[in-house]
Amino acid sequence: MEITGRSLIGQSDIQLDGKPVYAVNPATGETLEPAYHCGGIDEVNRACDLADKAKQVFRVTSLEERAVFLETIASEIEALGDVLVQRCMQETGLPQARIEGERGRTCGQLRLFASVVRAGEWLDARVETAMPDRSPLPRADLRQQSIALGPVAVFGASNFPLAFSVAGGDTASALAAGCPVVVKAHSAHPGTSELVGRAVQSAVAKCNLPEGVFSLLYGSGSELGQALVMDHRIKAVGFTGSRSGGIALTVAAQSRPEPIPVYAEMSSINPVFLLPNALETNAQELATGFVGSLAMGAGQFCTNPGLIIALRGEALDRFLSTVVSTISEVAAQTMLTPGIHRAYVNGVEALSANENVRLLGCGKDGEQPNLCQAAVFVASASDFLVDERLQDEVFGSCSLVVECEDMAQVLSVALKLEGQLTATLQMNDDDLAHAQFLLPTLEEKAGRVMVNGWPTGVEVCHSMVHGGPFPATSDSRSTSVGSSAIFRFLRPVCYQNLPQALLPKNLRDDELSKVSHLWDGKRV
Amino acid sequence: MEITGRSLIGQSDIQLDGKPVYAVNPATGETLEPAYHCGGIDEVNRACDLADKAKQVFRVTSLEERAVFLETIASEIEALGDVLVQRCMQETGLPQARIEGERGRTCGQLRLFASVVRAGEWLDARVETAMPDRSPLPRADLRQQSIALGPVAVFGASNFPLAFSVAGGDTASALAAGCPVVVKAHSAHPGTSELVGRAVQSAVAKCNLPEGVFSLLYGSGSELGQALVMDHRIKAVGFTGSRSGGIALTVAAQSRPEPIPVYAEMSSINPVFLLPNALETNAQELATGFVGSLAMGAGQFCTNPGLIIALRGEALDRFLSTVVSTISEVAAQTMLTPGIHRAYVNGVEALSANENVRLLGCGKDGEQPNLCQAAVFVASASDFLVDERLQDEVFGSCSLVVECEDMAQVLSVALKLEGQLTATLQMNDDDLAHAQFLLPTLEEKAGRVMVNGWPTGVEVCHSMVHGGPFPATSDSRSTSVGSSAIFRFLRPVCYQNLPQALLPKNLRDDELSKVSHLWDGKRV
Repeated sequence: MEITGRSLIGQSDIQLDGKPVYAVNPATGETLEPAYHCGGIDEVNRACDLADKAKQVFRVTSLEERAVFLETIASEIEALGDVLVQRCMQETGLPQARIEGERGRTCGQLRLFASVVRAGEWLDARVETAMPDRSPLPRADLRQQSIALGPVAVFGASNFPLAFSVAGGDTASALAAGCPVVVKAHSAHPGTSELVGRAVQSAVAKCNLPEGVFSLLYGSGSELGQALVMDHRIKAVGFTGSRSGGIALTVAAQSRPEPIPVYAEMSSINPVFLLPNALETNAQELATGFVGSLAMGAGQFCTNPGLIIALRGEALDRFLSTVVSTISEVAAQTMLTPGIHRAYVNGVEALSANENVRLLGCGKDGEQPNLCQAAVFVASASDFLVDERLQDEVFGSCSLVVECEDMAQVLSVALKLEGQLTATLQMNDDDLAHAQFLLPTLEEKAGRVMVNGWPTGVEVCHSMVHGGPFPATSDSRSTSVGSSAIFRFLRPVCYQNLPQALLPKNLRDDELSKVSHLWDGKRV
Repeated sequence: MEITGRSLIGQSDIQLDGKPVYAVNPATGETLEPAYHCGGIDEVNRACDLADKAKQVFRVTSLEERAVFLETIASEIEALGDVLVQRCMQETGLPQARIEGERGRTCGQLRLFASVVRAGEWLDARVETAMPDRSPLPRADLRQQSIALGPVAVFGASNFPLAFSVAGGDTASALAAGCPVVVKAHSAHPGTSELVGRAVQSAVAKCNLPEGVFSLLYGSGSELGQALVMDHRIKAVGFTGSRSGGIALTVAAQSRPEPIPVYAEMSSINPVFLLPNALETNAQELATGFVGSLAMGAGQFCTNPGLIIALRGEALDRFLSTVVSTISEVAAQTMLTPGIHRAYVNGVEALSANENVRLLGCGKDGEQPNLCQAAVFVASASDFLVDERLQDEVFGSCSLVVECEDMAQVLSVALKLEGQLTATLQMNDDDLAHAQFLLPTLEEKAGRVMVNGWPTGVEVCHSMVHGGPFPATSDSRSTSVGSSAIFRFLRPVCYQNLPQALLPKNLRDDELSKVSHLWDGKRV
């Protein structure tokens, strides 16, 4: 597979002549060929027109056809082989093992959604049969299933160039729901995007689907991205990125004549509470675990532990002292882009300049460009409670430890938190009462509550919630990881008194037994 | 039970001294005692503070406790007896049988949600047990359930003083989800609201729930209503009413530091397609069915058939001629409020003045105040396709017939429609191909598609969807009638590696078998 610099609109690949954008190897600063020329309103129009033409055919493909399509995308991505891994390493500075692991996760995710489509739970099929003799009024035959919302715009993330990008979770779940997808490639990894886009394009052709099921565009967020969200044929948006970017898309989507849902996963500092007995017993182990989670992948995860909350005292001092010694050994790692590196340096500088905060310890520095030097800061809970800047996410290996006077103050800190993707309790059996004291608040603040683990590492499965109250996401009722992600792109339709020949296939009497459904309110 | 004019905040009833508002008997123009004094920011603050204090206790009540609470509300409403029916008739001009029927529906709805709570489907429980030996990485124990969003603001509707008001569908589903509710009473039926509010208040006390589970406030939409939606403790909004009102609340909710979901059911003209063979065979029957649906309850239903689409020709002429003769016999009926009557008259006048439209026929007029004189207009499809005013909802017994040249033009009309609550096909066996031609578009335009019925009359059941794309509602992924309405007020939380003692009760090993759940992705 060749890397050409072209946009993919349906089955065409198109050489544009807009402003050229090049990928940069963040480890070397080297510019990578070829140029990717920005598209504009014309390309948005063409892609959305094709998506609109494809939507009715695509949303009524059989469960099996759609599952095979998702599996074909996975095979086509695997068939790209080492070309994909090498290009992705060049564009992101991420190590080979990480890219290969992420490719496995991406293909596994596509296959999970294939199994989800086949199982048919997502249809939420419901039936109430006619009661013509009911008094005072007869009841008509009533059936319900969920249908695809329509074409979805997906904005790839910088930090997962495969798993949250062109064929990542948003695309996989939207396609699984029966929605055509128009992706705006992240400009940090255009070549990786093109390769994966060509794999999807090839799967569309192999499965004889209408070409508008998938397009891949390049361009700036403020022009092409906005135009995409404002296009009347787009019916939902998936986004992973910054808080400002997510809010801008949400505002745009709400300003349309027909507002549409935006699923933006934006900002989270993932508080970890070190409960007193666990801290007393395990201060050193907790410190090394924490630094390991913090430093992983230069801290470039949405679930990076950016906030530690614990009681002031001797046990916390032991924890902090081990953090200092452990972090001092952490090698600087290349960040994904010069822009992300710049934002990280600015964030660390802002904390350093904040008089409510003291620097606890740092990782190693280095000579190469775009290195992330890990940093941990400390603040008192009383300062944290009044200084809202201390909740700003610093994307990278940076974290803040908040020292509390007592458990009541720990609860005050929890109550003060903005919405989060995760909240973690480090505890042992003797901390149960403390955990019960905090848990109701943590459930209300976060989409995932965990015990004795670290928030980095998100299992792709049926029980996962990678979401949470604002600003973690723009819609706390949803998840962007795991099989429930499909529900973001569906809406229910009730069919009243339709003859069997008109009913959607899955709701017909002879097909109903194939999927889980509610019959008169009872699960069958 | 006495009618006092007081606001209900938790278990208190409070005599305010703000601007007084009186109900008006629309049939006589008579002002009804007592005065209801408008609340403001202080009352919003007190109600939201109590709701916030109640939320954690209320959301973890057992399934049985919450079900009994809903059933107790129903019994308390029934115990109000004839006082409620009489007051409601005075405030709405609706006949006794309608009010009694609506009371039955309201209590049935509460009991349906009690059964929904007990069944536990709404928990969407999911479990993936730990795989400590999995390679390359172990899997933690992961469980998911949905939890209540938090306090919900409910805005009662004018046209269902019981079923869509203080203890109507929004309140019932929010309470079922475990959310405290703060209701802003509709100013058209304050006494009815107080009586029902006292029934709910009494149920809260009888069930020993925290008082903040329910409050009832009076005031203007632009002051008290806005203050309620802007209060940081409110986490979702349920609304049924006008398009402008729903959009204003949505904009306010989006402008909060923490945006929240608004479920506004707003505007729908409920197109009915008379397919050629059904029209040919049944023109007269269709005409009388149509006028019956149009005139029912002075047309004051969200699902009133405001648009008829058919092919021009002799069969349509027969239909129209029967419409003229039938509607001429329709007696004028009292509308709910002077404001609604004024809007109806203005809407009919606007159509009469529109040169693209001709008046087909009218119902009888009368001498009493606030009467709805039914009216049917006709326009050509070519005019309909270019004149967007013809899609404006005229709330009341007013409808527009659109004459098309051929089925392609019928499809063009369908494609031009805004989002709808319902879309109806009148058809016989010979119309199957026509129906198949239109159905995919109707599914995309409406929340409920029906055959050979009339859209008025909404069954409260598990398969119902009373929702639809904008502007029918602000969130097409939801319904405000039927058991799925509960999902509007829930969000998923994942629990990772929690000891049994910390897990929510319904997710513990010894409780799981009591509710339907996904185990490793398989339905159990």
